[in-house]
Amino acid sequence: MATDIGMRTPVNLSYAQAVQQTTDALKAEGFGVLSQIDMQATLKQKLNVDFRRYMILGACNPPLAHQALTANLDIGLLLPCNVTVYEEGDGSVVTAVDPVAMLGVFQDDPVAHAVAVDARTRLQRVIASLKQSK
Amino acid sequence: MATDIGMRTPVNLSYAQAVQQTTDALKAEGFGVLSQIDMQATLKQKLNVDFRRYMILGACNPPLAHQALTANLDIGLLLPCNVTVYEEGDGSVVTAVDPVAMLGVFQDDPVAHAVAVDARTRLQRVIASLKQSK
Repeated sequence: MATDIGMRTPVNLSYAQAVQQTTDALKAEGFGVLSQIDMQATLKQKLNVDFRRYMILGACNPPLAHQALTANLDIGLLLPCNVTVYEEGDGSVVTAVDPVAMLGVFQDDPVAHAVAVDARTRLQRVIASLKQSK
Repeated sequence: MATDIGMRTPVNLSYAQAVQQTTDALKAEGFGVLSQIDMQATLKQKLNVDFRRYMILGACNPPLAHQALTANLDIGLLLPCNVTVYEEGDGSVVTAVDPVAMLGVFQDDPVAHAVAVDARTRLQRVIASLKQSK
């Protein structure tokens, strides 16, 4: 993948299981899922095309989001942190955005940078924990 | 703002009106709003802190999203396009992400780049139309 923007792991789980375990793993790191976008359903409904099962989870850690938005209102353009789950063969793949890469434009803001590093560390643990579920 | 990542306009509209007119303007450019994240409510509920009214709209143009995801599954990490509306003084401010800046990492992919340019042009028209509502 374009590793610049995120991290990824295959998981030996059905799509539904992968969505659930990813949601649980995010919760364990303080991220609530504020949005769930089912791209398969959206593309079927809007375009009548068939696409693989593909979910975009909008993950938000409220204390980090509050710090980031207080430092810079424009950071809302980069929130929440996207985590995707899609089917691949008999299993699934989970990807998570790298907040440090996403907030690169705010790198001169020490608060924004610290928040991004914290969020990245948490998301790395999420991906690592899912990797173990293979 | 960090103009690298987006565009912005103040609008002489109440917050509620700005959310509605932004949603309408997005629709006119083929973007549906797939997620609405009310940051004020989220921060109040999760942290019991008071924050200004601030909405993050997840805007998706289905044909463009389909082209982008078909070109590269990882692009889901950058979808949907964020558009924010927040209160400021007696009016509101609307910002929209710049898809070309966001998809910079995919700039070697001609399909992804063309989709990003198309999305940016549409979002620029959204912001320009709202600017006229001042």
